[in-house]
Amino acid sequence: MTNKKEIIAGIIIIGNEILSGRTQDINTKTISLWLNTIGIKVTEVTIIADVEQTIIDTVNEFKKRFNYVFTSGGIGPTHDDITAQSVSKAFNIEYGPHKEAMKILENYYQPGEFSEGRQKMAWMPVSAKLIYNPSSGAPGFNVENVYCLPGVPSILKSMIGGLTNELVGGDPIISHTLSLRTVESEIAKSLSNVQDNNKDVDIGSYPFFKAGKLGVSIVLRSPEQKKIDKCNSEILKFVKEKNIELVENS
Amino acid sequence: MTNKKEIIAGIIIIGNEILSGRTQDINTKTISLWLNTIGIKVTEVTIIADVEQTIIDTVNEFKKRFNYVFTSGGIGPTHDDITAQSVSKAFNIEYGPHKEAMKILENYYQPGEFSEGRQKMAWMPVSAKLIYNPSSGAPGFNVENVYCLPGVPSILKSMIGGLTNELVGGDPIISHTLSLRTVESEIAKSLSNVQDNNKDVDIGSYPFFKAGKLGVSIVLRSPEQKKIDKCNSEILKFVKEKNIELVENS
Repeated sequence: MTNKKEIIAGIIIIGNEILSGRTQDINTKTISLWLNTIGIKVTEVTIIADVEQTIIDTVNEFKKRFNYVFTSGGIGPTHDDITAQSVSKAFNIEYGPHKEAMKILENYYQPGEFSEGRQKMAWMPVSAKLIYNPSSGAPGFNVENVYCLPGVPSILKSMIGGLTNELVGGDPIISHTLSLRTVESEIAKSLSNVQDNNKDVDIGSYPFFKAGKLGVSIVLRSPEQKKIDKCNSEILKFVKEKNIELVENS
Repeated sequence: MTNKKEIIAGIIIIGNEILSGRTQDINTKTISLWLNTIGIKVTEVTIIADVEQTIIDTVNEFKKRFNYVFTSGGIGPTHDDITAQSVSKAFNIEYGPHKEAMKILENYYQPGEFSEGRQKMAWMPVSAKLIYNPSSGAPGFNVENVYCLPGVPSILKSMIGGLTNELVGGDPIISHTLSLRTVESEIAKSLSNVQDNNKDVDIGSYPFFKAGKLGVSIVLRSPEQKKIDKCNSEILKFVKEKNIELVENS
Protein backbone atom coordinates (compact mmCIF):
# COMPACT_ATOMS: atom_id res chain seq x y z
CA MET A 1 0.00 0.00 0.00
CA THR A 2 1.48 3.32 -1.01
CA ASN A 3 0.83 6.13 1.36
CA LYS A 4 -0.16 9.45 -0.14
CA LYS A 5 1.31 12.56 1.42
CA GLU A 6 -0.66 13.84 4.40
CA ILE A 7 -3.04 16.58 3.32
CA ILE A 8 -3.79 19.12 6.03
CA ALA A 9 -6.35 21.87 6.49
CA GLY A 10 -6.77 24.87 8.76
CA ILE A 11 -10.12 26.40 9.71
CA ILE A 12 -10.70 30.09 10.43
CA ILE A 13 -13.93 30.80 12.31
CA ILE A 14 -14.71 34.50 11.99
CA GLY A 15 -17.10 36.18 14.38
CA ASN A 16 -17.32 38.17 17.60
CA GLU A 17 -20.44 36.19 18.54
CA ILE A 18 -18.40 33.00 18.92
CA LEU A 19 -15.67 34.72 20.96
CA SER A 20 -18.19 36.37 23.28
CA GLY A 21 -19.80 33.01 24.02
CA ARG A 22 -23.15 34.10 22.62
CA THR A 23 -23.04 31.52 19.84
CA GLN A 24 -21.74 27.97 20.00
CA ASP A 25 -19.50 27.15 17.03
CA ILE A 26 -20.52 23.85 15.46
CA ASN A 27 -19.04 24.43 12.01
CA THR A 28 -15.61 23.16 13.06
CA LYS A 29 -17.09 19.76 13.75
CA THR A 30 -19.07 19.74 10.49
CA ILE A 31 -16.05 20.67 8.38
CA SER A 32 -13.68 18.30 10.19
CA LEU A 33 -15.94 15.27 9.90
CA TRP A 34 -16.52 15.97 6.21
CA LEU A 35 -12.80 16.42 5.50
CA ASN A 36 -11.98 13.15 7.32
CA THR A 37 -14.05 11.29 4.73
CA ILE A 38 -11.91 12.64 1.90
CA GLY A 39 -8.56 12.14 3.61
CA ILE A 40 -7.90 15.70 4.71
CA LYS A 41 -6.83 16.23 8.31
CA VAL A 42 -7.68 19.43 10.18
CA THR A 43 -4.61 20.31 12.25
CA GLU A 44 -5.51 23.78 13.50
CA VAL A 45 -8.57 25.96 14.06
CA THR A 46 -8.55 29.61 14.98
CA ILE A 47 -11.50 31.72 16.10
CA ILE A 48 -10.96 35.41 15.41
CA ALA A 49 -12.86 38.68 15.67
CA ASP A 50 -14.55 40.67 12.88
CA VAL A 51 -11.47 42.86 12.48
CA GLU A 52 -10.15 43.44 8.97
CA GLN A 53 -6.43 43.34 9.67
CA THR A 54 -6.80 40.23 11.82
CA ILE A 55 -8.65 38.43 9.03
CA ILE A 56 -6.10 39.51 6.41
CA ASP A 57 -3.13 38.41 8.53
CA THR A 58 -4.70 35.09 9.49
CA VAL A 59 -5.69 34.23 5.91
CA ASN A 60 -2.20 35.12 4.66
CA GLU A 61 -0.57 32.95 7.31
CA PHE A 62 -2.94 29.98 6.96
CA LYS A 63 -2.87 29.84 3.13
CA LYS A 64 0.88 29.23 3.34
CA ARG A 65 0.79 26.69 6.18
CA PHE A 66 -2.06 24.45 5.03
CA ASN A 67 -3.02 22.62 1.85
CA TYR A 68 -6.57 23.87 2.30
CA VAL A 69 -8.04 26.69 4.34
CA PHE A 70 -11.73 27.08 5.20
CA THR A 71 -13.25 30.24 6.60
CA SER A 72 -16.69 30.39 8.16
CA GLY A 73 -18.69 33.52 8.85
CA GLY A 74 -18.82 37.15 7.82
CA ILE A 75 -20.15 36.87 4.26
CA GLY A 76 -23.66 38.23 4.88
CA PRO A 77 -25.02 41.67 3.99
CA THR A 78 -24.46 43.67 7.20
CA HIS A 79 -21.69 46.04 8.28
CA ASP A 80 -20.04 43.39 10.46
CA ASP A 81 -19.68 41.01 7.49
CA ILE A 82 -16.20 41.87 6.31
CA THR A 83 -14.74 38.53 5.29
CA ALA A 84 -15.10 39.06 1.52
CA GLN A 85 -13.39 42.44 1.51
CA SER A 86 -10.66 41.20 3.88
CA VAL A 87 -9.92 38.13 1.75
CA SER A 88 -9.81 40.37 -1.35
CA LYS A 89 -7.14 42.44 0.36
CA ALA A 90 -5.24 39.35 1.54
CA PHE A 91 -4.98 38.18 -2.08
CA ASN A 92 -4.66 41.67 -3.54
CA ILE A 93 -7.67 41.11 -5.79
CA GLU A 94 -10.26 43.79 -6.57
CA TYR A 95 -13.30 43.67 -4.23
CA GLY A 96 -16.47 44.31 -6.21
CA PRO A 97 -19.68 42.82 -7.62
CA HIS A 98 -18.94 39.32 -8.90
CA LYS A 99 -20.66 38.86 -12.28
CA GLU A 100 -21.84 35.27 -11.83
CA ALA A 101 -22.88 35.87 -8.20
CA MET A 102 -24.92 38.92 -9.27
CA LYS A 103 -26.73 36.77 -11.86
CA ILE A 104 -27.46 34.01 -9.35
CA LEU A 105 -28.92 36.46 -6.86
CA GLU A 106 -30.89 38.39 -9.52
CA ASN A 107 -32.54 35.10 -10.44
CA TYR A 108 -33.02 34.07 -6.82
CA TYR A 109 -34.99 37.14 -5.74
CA GLN A 110 -38.34 38.31 -7.08
CA PRO A 111 -38.15 41.27 -9.50
CA GLY A 112 -37.63 44.46 -7.52
CA GLU A 113 -36.46 42.61 -4.41
CA PHE A 114 -32.75 42.49 -5.25
CA SER A 115 -32.02 45.48 -3.03
CA GLU A 116 -28.71 47.22 -2.41
CA GLY A 117 -28.39 45.30 0.89
CA ARG A 118 -28.76 42.02 -0.92
CA GLN A 119 -26.37 43.03 -3.69
CA LYS A 120 -23.62 43.24 -1.08
CA MET A 121 -23.73 39.45 -0.87
CA ALA A 122 -22.42 39.35 -4.47
CA TRP A 123 -19.44 41.56 -3.59
CA MET A 124 -16.26 39.55 -3.22
CA PRO A 125 -12.89 39.11 -4.92
CA VAL A 126 -14.06 39.65 -8.53
CA SER A 127 -12.05 36.75 -9.94
CA ALA A 128 -13.07 34.24 -7.23
CA LYS A 129 -14.58 30.88 -8.07
CA LEU A 130 -18.05 30.51 -6.58
CA ILE A 131 -19.14 27.91 -4.05
CA TYR A 132 -22.80 27.29 -4.82
CA ASN A 133 -25.45 27.56 -2.16
CA PRO A 134 -28.42 25.21 -2.55
CA SER A 135 -30.15 26.59 0.58
CA SER A 136 -30.43 30.32 0.22
CA GLY A 137 -28.90 31.61 -3.00
CA ALA A 138 -25.94 33.65 -1.78
CA PRO A 139 -22.79 31.79 -2.79
CA GLY A 140 -19.50 31.38 -0.97
CA PHE A 141 -16.25 31.76 -2.87
CA ASN A 142 -12.84 30.22 -3.40
CA VAL A 143 -9.51 31.90 -4.12
CA GLU A 144 -6.49 29.62 -4.58
CA ASN A 145 -6.55 27.24 -1.58
CA VAL A 146 -8.93 29.33 0.55
CA TYR A 147 -12.64 28.46 0.68
CA CYS A 148 -14.98 31.03 2.22
CA LEU A 149 -18.22 29.69 3.66
CA PRO A 150 -21.07 31.28 5.60
CA GLY A 151 -21.46 31.09 9.37
CA VAL A 152 -25.04 29.78 9.51
CA PRO A 153 -24.49 26.06 10.22
CA SER A 154 -27.35 24.64 8.12
CA ILE A 155 -26.31 26.68 5.08
CA LEU A 156 -22.65 25.82 5.47
CA LYS A 157 -23.58 22.16 5.71
CA SER A 158 -25.61 22.32 2.51
CA MET A 159 -22.69 23.88 0.61
CA ILE A 160 -19.70 21.71 1.45
CA GLY A 161 -20.93 18.59 -0.36
CA GLY A 162 -20.47 20.39 -3.67
CA LEU A 163 -16.77 20.84 -2.93
CA THR A 164 -16.02 17.16 -2.25
CA ASN A 165 -14.96 16.35 -5.80
CA GLU A 166 -12.88 19.46 -6.08
CA LEU A 167 -10.54 18.82 -3.17
CA VAL A 168 -7.68 16.38 -3.50
CA GLY A 169 -7.30 14.42 -0.29
CA GLY A 170 -4.97 11.71 0.91
CA ASP A 171 -6.15 8.31 2.02
CA PRO A 172 -9.30 8.64 4.12
CA ILE A 173 -8.56 8.50 7.82
CA ILE A 174 -10.11 5.47 9.50
CA SER A 175 -11.26 5.86 13.06
CA HIS A 176 -11.87 2.98 15.44
CA THR A 177 -13.26 3.27 18.98
CA LEU A 178 -12.94 0.92 21.94
CA SER A 179 -14.98 1.87 24.97
CA LEU A 180 -13.97 0.34 28.27
CA ARG A 181 -15.57 0.26 31.70
CA THR A 182 -12.52 1.60 33.52
CA VAL A 183 -10.76 4.85 34.45
CA GLU A 184 -7.87 6.36 32.54
CA SER A 185 -5.28 5.92 35.30
CA GLU A 186 -5.95 2.16 35.28
CA ILE A 187 -4.87 1.74 31.65
CA ALA A 188 -2.51 4.70 31.19
CA LYS A 189 0.71 2.68 31.30
CA SER A 190 -0.47 -0.19 29.08
CA LEU A 191 -1.91 2.24 26.55
CA SER A 192 1.31 4.22 26.52
CA ASN A 193 3.19 0.99 25.65
CA VAL A 194 0.78 0.33 22.78
CA GLN A 195 1.39 3.88 21.50
CA ASP A 196 5.15 3.31 21.69
CA ASN A 197 4.78 0.12 19.62
CA ASN A 198 2.53 1.84 17.07
CA LYS A 199 3.96 5.28 16.57
CA ASP A 200 2.07 6.15 13.41
CA VAL A 201 -1.38 5.38 14.77
CA ASP A 202 -2.93 8.35 16.54
CA ILE A 203 -4.23 6.94 19.86
CA GLY A 204 -6.49 9.15 21.96
CA SER A 205 -7.95 8.40 25.38
CA TYR A 206 -11.17 10.13 26.46
CA PRO A 207 -12.98 9.60 29.75
CA PHE A 208 -16.77 9.58 29.57
CA PHE A 209 -19.67 9.48 31.99
CA LYS A 210 -22.76 7.87 30.51
CA ALA A 211 -25.89 6.48 32.14
CA GLY A 212 -24.36 6.96 35.56
CA LYS A 213 -21.22 4.98 34.77
CA LEU A 214 -17.64 6.05 34.15
CA GLY A 215 -15.69 4.75 31.20
CA VAL A 216 -12.89 5.50 28.78
CA SER A 217 -13.08 5.64 25.01
CA ILE A 218 -9.88 4.84 23.18
CA VAL A 219 -9.86 6.20 19.65
CA LEU A 220 -7.44 4.86 17.05
CA ARG A 221 -6.92 6.91 13.88
CA SER A 222 -4.84 6.04 10.85
CA PRO A 223 -5.31 5.84 7.08
CA GLU A 224 -4.30 2.15 7.26
CA GLN A 225 -6.74 -0.51 8.47
CA LYS A 226 -3.92 -3.00 9.11
CA LYS A 227 -2.22 -0.68 11.55
CA ILE A 228 -5.48 -0.04 13.37
CA ASP A 229 -6.13 -3.80 13.59
CA LYS A 230 -2.67 -4.44 15.08
CA CYS A 231 -3.17 -1.68 17.64
CA ASN A 232 -6.66 -2.89 18.45
CA SER A 233 -5.51 -6.43 19.20
CA GLU A 234 -2.72 -5.18 21.46
CA ILE A 235 -5.28 -3.17 23.42
CA LEU A 236 -7.70 -6.10 23.61
CA LYS A 237 -4.84 -8.16 25.05
CA PHE A 238 -4.29 -5.89 28.06
CA VAL A 239 -8.03 -5.34 28.47
CA LYS A 240 -8.45 -9.11 28.86
CA GLU A 241 -5.46 -9.42 31.19
CA LYS A 242 -6.78 -6.65 33.40
CA ASN A 243 -10.27 -8.14 33.33
CA ILE A 244 -11.81 -4.84 32.11
CA GLU A 245 -15.31 -4.85 30.60
CA LEU A 246 -15.35 -3.98 26.88
CA VAL A 247 -18.44 -1.87 26.16
CA GLU A 248 -17.84 -1.04 22.49
CA ASN A 249 -15.40 -2.08 19.78
CA SER A 250 -16.30 -0.56 16.43
CA MET B 1 -17.24 57.28 34.38
CA THR B 2 -13.61 56.32 34.02
CA ASN B 3 -12.95 53.51 31.64
CA LYS B 4 -10.51 50.87 32.75
CA LYS B 5 -8.09 49.52 30.19
CA GLU B 6 -9.51 46.71 28.09
CA ILE B 7 -8.43 43.37 29.52
CA ILE B 8 -8.15 40.61 26.93
CA ALA B 9 -7.81 36.85 27.04
CA GLY B 10 -6.84 34.10 24.63
CA ILE B 11 -8.02 30.49 24.88
CA ILE B 12 -5.98 27.47 23.77
CA ILE B 13 -8.07 24.33 23.30
CA ILE B 14 -5.72 21.34 23.20
CA GLY B 15 -6.86 18.05 21.74
CA ASN B 16 -6.87 15.94 18.58
CA GLU B 17 -10.44 14.87 19.39
CA ILE B 18 -11.72 18.41 18.81
CA LEU B 19 -9.79 18.82 15.55
CA SER B 20 -11.00 15.47 14.21
CA GLY B 21 -14.61 16.44 14.84
CA ARG B 22 -15.15 13.55 17.25
CA THR B 23 -15.78 15.89 20.17
CA GLN B 24 -17.65 19.19 20.17
CA ASP B 25 -15.76 21.89 22.06
CA ILE B 26 -18.05 23.67 24.49
CA ASN B 27 -15.39 24.99 26.86
CA THR B 28 -14.80 28.10 24.75
CA LYS B 29 -18.37 29.21 25.39
CA THR B 30 -18.15 28.41 29.11
CA ILE B 31 -14.91 30.34 29.58
CA SER B 32 -16.03 33.30 27.44
CA LEU B 33 -19.36 33.77 29.19
CA TRP B 34 -17.67 33.59 32.59
CA LEU B 35 -14.95 36.07 31.61
CA ASN B 36 -17.59 38.52 30.27
CA THR B 37 -19.02 38.77 33.76
CA ILE B 38 -15.68 39.94 35.16
CA GLY B 39 -14.86 42.36 32.35
CA ILE B 40 -12.39 40.23 30.43
CA LYS B 41 -12.88 39.94 26.68
CA VAL B 42 -11.82 36.84 24.76
CA THR B 43 -10.31 38.05 21.48
CA GLU B 44 -8.85 34.84 20.09
CA VAL B 45 -9.24 31.09 20.43
CA THR B 46 -6.99 28.47 18.92
CA ILE B 47 -7.60 24.74 18.74
CA ILE B 48 -4.38 22.78 18.44
CA ALA B 49 -3.20 19.17 18.37
CA ASP B 50 -1.59 17.15 21.18
CA VAL B 51 1.89 17.96 19.83
CA GLU B 52 4.48 19.17 22.31
CA GLN B 53 6.23 21.77 20.19
CA THR B 54 2.90 23.20 19.01
CA ILE B 55 1.71 23.61 22.60
CA ILE B 56 5.02 25.20 23.69
CA ASP B 57 5.02 27.67 20.78
CA THR B 58 1.36 28.59 21.20
CA VAL B 59 1.66 29.15 24.96
CA ASN B 60 4.77 31.27 24.47
CA GLU B 61 3.04 33.40 21.85
CA PHE B 62 -0.28 33.77 23.71
CA LYS B 63 1.24 34.62 27.10
CA LYS B 64 2.83 37.68 25.48
CA ARG B 65 -0.20 38.78 23.48
CA PHE B 66 -2.96 38.46 26.10
CA ASN B 67 -3.50 39.60 29.68
CA TYR B 68 -4.79 36.13 30.50
CA VAL B 69 -4.42 32.80 28.75
CA PHE B 70 -6.57 29.74 29.43
CA THR B 71 -5.74 26.26 28.21
CA SER B 72 -8.22 23.41 28.20
CA GLY B 73 -7.38 19.74 27.83
CA GLY B 74 -4.44 17.41 28.09
CA ILE B 75 -3.93 17.29 31.86
CA GLY B 76 -5.21 13.77 32.50
CA PRO B 77 -3.15 10.64 33.21
CA THR B 78 -2.72 9.08 29.73
CA HIS B 79 0.12 9.28 27.18
CA ASP B 80 -1.75 11.84 25.06
CA ASP B 81 -2.03 14.25 28.02
CA ILE B 82 1.05 16.39 27.48
CA THR B 83 -0.11 19.89 28.42
CA ALA B 84 1.62 19.98 31.83
CA GLN B 85 5.01 18.93 30.50
CA SER B 86 4.69 21.27 27.50
CA VAL B 87 3.77 24.27 29.67
CA SER B 88 6.72 23.44 31.97
CA LYS B 89 9.01 23.63 28.94
CA ALA B 90 7.38 26.84 27.70
CA PHE B 91 8.17 28.49 31.05
CA ASN B 92 11.46 26.65 31.55
CA ILE B 93 10.29 25.31 34.93
CA GLU B 94 11.07 21.78 36.15
CA TYR B 95 8.31 19.25 35.36
CA GLY B 96 7.81 16.92 38.30
CA PRO B 97 5.50 15.87 41.14
CA HIS B 98 3.93 19.00 42.66
CA LYS B 99 4.00 18.71 46.45
CA GLU B 100 0.60 20.19 47.20
CA ALA B 101 -1.05 18.36 44.29
CA MET B 102 0.41 15.05 45.50
CA LYS B 103 -1.08 15.67 48.96
CA ILE B 104 -4.49 16.53 47.55
CA LEU B 105 -4.59 13.37 45.46
CA GLU B 106 -3.23 11.17 48.25
CA ASN B 107 -6.13 12.35 50.39
CA TYR B 108 -8.63 12.03 47.56
CA TYR B 109 -7.99 8.35 46.83
CA GLN B 110 -8.47 5.40 49.17
CA PRO B 111 -5.27 4.02 50.69
CA GLY B 112 -3.49 1.87 48.11
CA GLU B 113 -5.44 3.38 45.20
CA PHE B 114 -3.10 6.28 44.46
CA SER B 115 -1.45 4.38 41.60
CA GLU B 116 1.40 5.45 39.35
CA GLY B 117 -1.15 6.37 36.65
CA ARG B 118 -2.98 8.65 39.06
CA GLN B 119 0.23 10.20 40.34
CA LYS B 120 0.88 11.54 36.85
CA MET B 121 -1.99 13.98 37.43
CA ALA B 122 0.16 15.66 40.10
CA TRP B 123 3.06 16.14 37.69
CA MET B 124 3.26 19.71 36.45
CA PRO B 125 5.56 22.74 36.67
CA VAL B 126 6.78 22.21 40.24
CA SER B 127 6.41 25.87 41.23
CA ALA B 128 2.92 26.32 39.71
CA LYS B 129 0.00 27.64 41.72
CA LEU B 130 -2.83 25.12 41.88
CA ILE B 131 -6.34 25.61 40.56
CA TYR B 132 -8.53 23.55 42.88
CA ASN B 133 -10.94 20.98 41.54
CA PRO B 134 -14.13 20.49 43.56
CA SER B 135 -15.40 17.74 41.20
CA SER B 136 -12.74 15.10 40.92
CA GLY B 137 -9.64 15.94 42.92
CA ALA B 138 -7.01 16.46 40.24
CA PRO B 139 -6.14 20.16 40.21
CA GLY B 140 -5.33 22.45 37.31
CA PHE B 141 -2.45 24.88 37.60
CA ASN B 142 -1.41 28.45 36.96
CA VAL B 143 1.96 29.86 35.92
CA GLU B 144 2.21 33.63 35.49
CA ASN B 145 -0.76 34.62 33.32
CA VAL B 146 -1.46 31.11 31.99
CA TYR B 147 -4.24 29.01 33.57
CA CYS B 148 -4.35 25.32 32.67
CA LEU B 149 -7.73 23.63 32.98
CA PRO B 150 -8.99 20.14 32.11
CA GLY B 151 -10.90 19.29 28.94
CA VAL B 152 -13.92 17.57 30.54
CA PRO B 153 -16.57 20.33 30.41
CA SER B 154 -18.33 19.64 33.71
CA ILE B 155 -15.04 19.56 35.62
CA LEU B 156 -13.75 22.70 33.91
CA LYS B 157 -17.00 24.46 34.77
CA SER B 158 -16.70 23.50 38.43
CA MET B 159 -13.17 24.90 38.62
CA ILE B 160 -13.39 28.35 37.05
CA GLY B 161 -15.55 29.90 39.76
CA GLY B 162 -12.64 29.64 42.20
CA LEU B 163 -10.55 31.86 39.92
CA THR B 164 -13.03 34.73 39.70
CA ASN B 165 -11.56 36.70 42.59
CA GLU B 166 -8.03 36.17 41.39
CA LEU B 167 -8.39 37.72 37.95
CA VAL B 168 -8.39 41.47 37.52
CA GLY B 169 -10.89 42.46 34.88
CA GLY B 170 -12.03 45.72 33.37
CA ASP B 171 -15.60 46.95 33.48
CA PRO B 172 -17.98 44.06 32.86
CA ILE B 173 -19.18 43.98 29.28
CA ILE B 174 -22.92 44.60 28.99
CA SER B 175 -24.76 42.84 26.20
CA HIS B 176 -28.15 43.90 24.86
CA THR B 177 -30.16 42.05 22.22
CA LEU B 178 -32.89 43.29 19.89
CA SER B 179 -34.59 40.61 17.84
CA LEU B 180 -36.47 41.75 14.77
CA ARG B 181 -38.84 40.04 12.37
CA THR B 182 -36.91 40.97 9.24
CA VAL B 183 -33.98 39.86 7.09
CA GLU B 184 -30.48 41.27 7.31
CA SER B 185 -30.45 42.91 3.89
CA GLU B 186 -33.51 44.98 4.88
CA ILE B 187 -31.72 46.69 7.76
CA ALA B 188 -28.08 46.49 6.63
CA LYS B 189 -27.76 50.13 5.59
CA SER B 190 -29.56 51.64 8.60
CA LEU B 191 -27.60 49.46 10.99
CA SER B 192 -24.35 50.43 9.33
CA ASN B 193 -25.24 54.10 9.95
CA VAL B 194 -25.89 53.35 13.63
CA GLN B 195 -22.48 51.64 13.84
CA ASP B 196 -20.83 54.70 12.23
CA ASN B 197 -22.50 56.95 14.85
CA ASN B 198 -21.48 54.65 17.73
CA LYS B 199 -18.01 53.47 16.92
CA ASP B 200 -17.16 52.12 20.36
CA VAL B 201 -20.22 49.92 20.70
CA ASP B 202 -19.69 46.49 19.20
CA ILE B 203 -22.79 45.88 17.05
CA GLY B 204 -23.35 42.38 15.67
CA SER B 205 -26.11 41.19 13.37
CA TYR B 206 -27.13 37.51 13.41
CA PRO B 207 -29.87 35.96 11.31
CA PHE B 208 -31.97 33.31 13.02
CA PHE B 209 -34.66 30.85 12.05
CA LYS B 210 -36.96 29.98 14.92
CA ALA B 211 -40.39 28.36 15.00
CA GLY B 212 -40.56 28.51 11.22
CA LYS B 213 -39.88 32.23 11.04
CA LEU B 214 -36.86 34.21 9.93
CA GLY B 215 -35.48 37.00 12.04
CA VAL B 216 -32.37 38.96 12.90
CA SER B 217 -30.83 39.45 16.32
CA ILE B 218 -28.85 42.61 16.80
CA VAL B 219 -26.42 42.38 19.69
CA LEU B 220 -24.95 45.51 21.27
CA ARG B 221 -21.89 45.09 23.49
CA SER B 222 -20.08 47.73 25.52
CA PRO B 223 -18.95 48.23 29.10
CA GLU B 224 -21.11 51.43 29.21
CA GLN B 225 -24.87 51.22 29.64
CA LYS B 226 -25.33 54.79 28.37
CA LYS B 227 -23.71 54.00 25.06
CA ILE B 228 -25.85 50.91 24.65
CA ASP B 229 -28.99 52.92 25.42
CA LYS B 230 -28.12 55.54 22.79
CA CYS B 231 -27.47 52.85 20.20
CA ASN B 232 -30.64 51.02 21.14
CA SER B 233 -32.84 54.07 20.67
CA GLU B 234 -31.28 54.80 17.26
CA ILE B 235 -32.09 51.26 16.20
CA LEU B 236 -35.64 51.45 17.55
CA LYS B 237 -36.09 54.61 15.48
CA PHE B 238 -35.38 52.93 12.15
CA VAL B 239 -37.26 49.80 13.24
CA LYS B 240 -40.37 51.94 13.76
CA GLU B 241 -39.85 53.86 10.49
CA LYS B 242 -39.51 50.63 8.55
CA ASN B 243 -42.50 49.14 10.34
CA ILE B 244 -40.54 46.09 11.43
CA GLU B 245 -41.90 43.88 14.21
CA LEU B 246 -39.77 43.92 17.37
CA VAL B 247 -39.72 40.45 18.91
CA GLU B 248 -37.28 41.00 21.76
CA ASN B 249 -35.55 43.96 23.39
CA SER B 250 -33.58 42.92 26.45
